[in-house]
Amino acid sequence: MSGIVVKYDVLKDFCYKLLRTQNVPEDEAEIIAAHLVEAEARGVVSHGVQRTSLYVNRLKSGVVNSAFDYEIEEESGGTVRWNAKNSMGMVTGVKAMEYTMKKAKENGICLTLVNHSNHFGMAGYYAQMASENGFMAVCGTNAPPTMAPTGSFKAFVGTNPIAVSAPMHGDPMMIDMAPSVVAKGKIIFAQKLGKPIPEGWAITADGKPTTDPAEAINGTVLPIGGPKGYGLSLFMDVFCGILSGAVMGPYLGNLFNDFVNPQNVGHLFCAIDVSRFMDLEAFKVRMDQMKDEIKALPKAEGVSEIFLPGEIEFRKRHAAFENGISLTEPIFEDLKKCAEENGVAFTL
Amino acid sequence: MSGIVVKYDVLKDFCYKLLRTQNVPEDEAEIIAAHLVEAEARGVVSHGVQRTSLYVNRLKSGVVNSAFDYEIEEESGGTVRWNAKNSMGMVTGVKAMEYTMKKAKENGICLTLVNHSNHFGMAGYYAQMASENGFMAVCGTNAPPTMAPTGSFKAFVGTNPIAVSAPMHGDPMMIDMAPSVVAKGKIIFAQKLGKPIPEGWAITADGKPTTDPAEAINGTVLPIGGPKGYGLSLFMDVFCGILSGAVMGPYLGNLFNDFVNPQNVGHLFCAIDVSRFMDLEAFKVRMDQMKDEIKALPKAEGVSEIFLPGEIEFRKRHAAFENGISLTEPIFEDLKKCAEENGVAFTL
Repeated sequence: MSGIVVKYDVLKDFCYKLLRTQNVPEDEAEIIAAHLVEAEARGVVSHGVQRTSLYVNRLKSGVVNSAFDYEIEEESGGTVRWNAKNSMGMVTGVKAMEYTMKKAKENGICLTLVNHSNHFGMAGYYAQMASENGFMAVCGTNAPPTMAPTGSFKAFVGTNPIAVSAPMHGDPMMIDMAPSVVAKGKIIFAQKLGKPIPEGWAITADGKPTTDPAEAINGTVLPIGGPKGYGLSLFMDVFCGILSGAVMGPYLGNLFNDFVNPQNVGHLFCAIDVSRFMDLEAFKVRMDQMKDEIKALPKAEGVSEIFLPGEIEFRKRHAAFENGISLTEPIFEDLKKCAEENGVAFTL
Repeated sequence: MSGIVVKYDVLKDFCYKLLRTQNVPEDEAEIIAAHLVEAEARGVVSHGVQRTSLYVNRLKSGVVNSAFDYEIEEESGGTVRWNAKNSMGMVTGVKAMEYTMKKAKENGICLTLVNHSNHFGMAGYYAQMASENGFMAVCGTNAPPTMAPTGSFKAFVGTNPIAVSAPMHGDPMMIDMAPSVVAKGKIIFAQKLGKPIPEGWAITADGKPTTDPAEAINGTVLPIGGPKGYGLSLFMDVFCGILSGAVMGPYLGNLFNDFVNPQNVGHLFCAIDVSRFMDLEAFKVRMDQMKDEIKALPKAEGVSEIFLPGEIEFRKRHAAFENGISLTEPIFEDLKKCAEENGVAFTL
C-alpha cells in the first residue's frame, strides 16, 4: 500500500473534530465524517476526506448553515417536496432518505425531491442505506454544467450522478455513476503524467475532438453514448432542478469558489419496499442466482473475476476498514493545515 | 421521400385488420395497430409495422393469448405487481399504465411491475401517454441477452430499454434508449453495405474487439460507458425480471423463433404526478425555459439545430402523419404476404 496509512476510525474521528470546530452539532458532524471516510475507503477519493477543509471553510463563511433544518413544502402518500434550508448536503441526504424509507414502508414507494441543498457527496451512500433496510433505491442530484448537449460544445448539463441499488445477502448491488465517459479527474491525472488522452473522452472549448489533456480541461467531457448520456443527465436535472423547486445546473452556486451565494442544489431520493412485491428473503435468493450466474460466465483474456455493479468498491472498503486507508501526501498535508488553522491537535 | 408512401390512417387500419383475423378484440387490435404505426412514423422501424406478421403468427400459434387478461398479485398505496397472463404486451402496457396513472393521481407516485407479459414495443409509448396526462414517467422492460457483463464476452443482459419523459407545452421531453452503443440493426446494415464498423460497437464471440460486421453479429454489442451501461441494463432486469416475479433475461422465451413457450417478459411502469410537487403549468414554464436555453446554445460545426431528447422522433412523427409513411419494399411485401395468408384484402 502506498501513501500514508491511517486507521479508518482514527481518520473518521479526526474529520469529526474538524467539523465540530464550526458549530456542527455532534450527531451531524458524525454523519458527515462517516460519509467522507466511507468515500475515501471505497476509492472515491474525489468525494473523500480531501473535501473536509472545503466544508470547514464553507461552514466558516456562513454560505452553508452549520445546523440541520428542513421544511416539508408539499406531501402526498408517496411524494415529498423537501426544502433543505441550506443545510449541509450529507446531513440532509441521510435525514431525507430516512423519511423516504419511513413513507415507503407505509406506502410501498416514496419519492422525495429536495431543493435548497448543498453538495451531498456520493449518491450511492443513500441508496446503500435504503438497500440495507430492505428497499430498492434510486438516488441522484444535479450539479453545475460540465457537459454540452449533443450538437453544442457549451457546458449546460452536469455530470449528474445516478445511483441505483438492490438488497442482497451481504453488500447491496449498486451503481453510482456519472453519465460521462470519464471523470474530469482522470484527464487532470493524464495531464500530470504528460500523457495524451484517448479521443472520445472530451472536446475542446470550441467543440473539436482532442487528445490533449490541457485542451480537454478547458473544454467539456463527453456523455456516455452521445445523446443517451446527455438525455440521462438532463432528466436528472428535470427531477432535481425543475420538479424539486431548486434551480437547473447552470444556475447552481459554485461549491469551490463561491462563498457568498448558497448553492440551491436539488436531490432525488426514491425508496421501493421490496416486501410489497415479494418476500425479501425470496428476492435475495433470486439476486443470489443472478450473481452466481454472472460470476460463472466465461472470462475475457486477462480477466480474473467478473464483478457485480458496486462489488469492487465494497471490496476496497472492507480492505480499508481492516487494514487502514492510504492517503496521498497532498491530502495528508491539507488535513494537517486545516487542523492548524482551526486549533485541532493533529492526531493522524 | 424514398420507398412506398402510405397514409398514416390507411396503414393503421390495415394493421388493425390483420390483427383482427386472430380473434384480437376490436379495442385491443386498435391499441396494437396504433402502437406499430406510431413506431413506424417516428422512424423506429425495428418496432414498426414489420412486426405485424410476427405478431399475427404468434397469435395464430397460441403462444400468446389473443384477448387481454390480468391479475393484480400484490398491491399497496403506491405499488402494483401485475400478472399479465400472457396477454399481448402492447395491450398490457396501455392498461397497466392507465392503472398506474390512476393510482399516481391518488398517491403522488405509483410503480407497477409486470410479469408473464410479452414484447411490448417501444417503452417510450407508455411514458408519453403518462406525460400527456401531467405525469413524469419512467418505463422499461427486460429482454433476451445481447450484451456481456464487463469482464466477460458471453451475452447475459439484454439491451433493456429505459424511457423517461416529462410534460411540456407541445410534445413531452423524452428519452427511450437501449444501454448499448448501437442497435444490432446498425451492424446488420453495415454488413449489407459491405462496410467495416467502428471499434467500440461490438466484440467477437470470443471477446476480441472487431470492425468486421459479420464477426460482430456473431458476437455481442457493447454497453455505453462499459460498466455503466452494463449496470443500467442489469438493474432494469432486477426490476423487471426479479422484483416483478417474471424471469431474468437469459430465461425469456424467444420472440422470433419460439412459438411454444410463452416469453414471461417483465415490465416497469412508474408515473409521478407533477402537480404534487408544483402547479403543472408552472412546471411547463420551467421546462420551456430549459428548452429555450438549450436551443440557444452555440452550435458545433455543421449542426443546424440543437435538439431536446425525443424532439427528432416527434418531428418525424408529425411529418409522417401529415405526408404519409414511407415503407421499404421488403416491409411492404411482408404486409402483402400476411394479408394473403390471412384472407385480408390488400388495401395499401
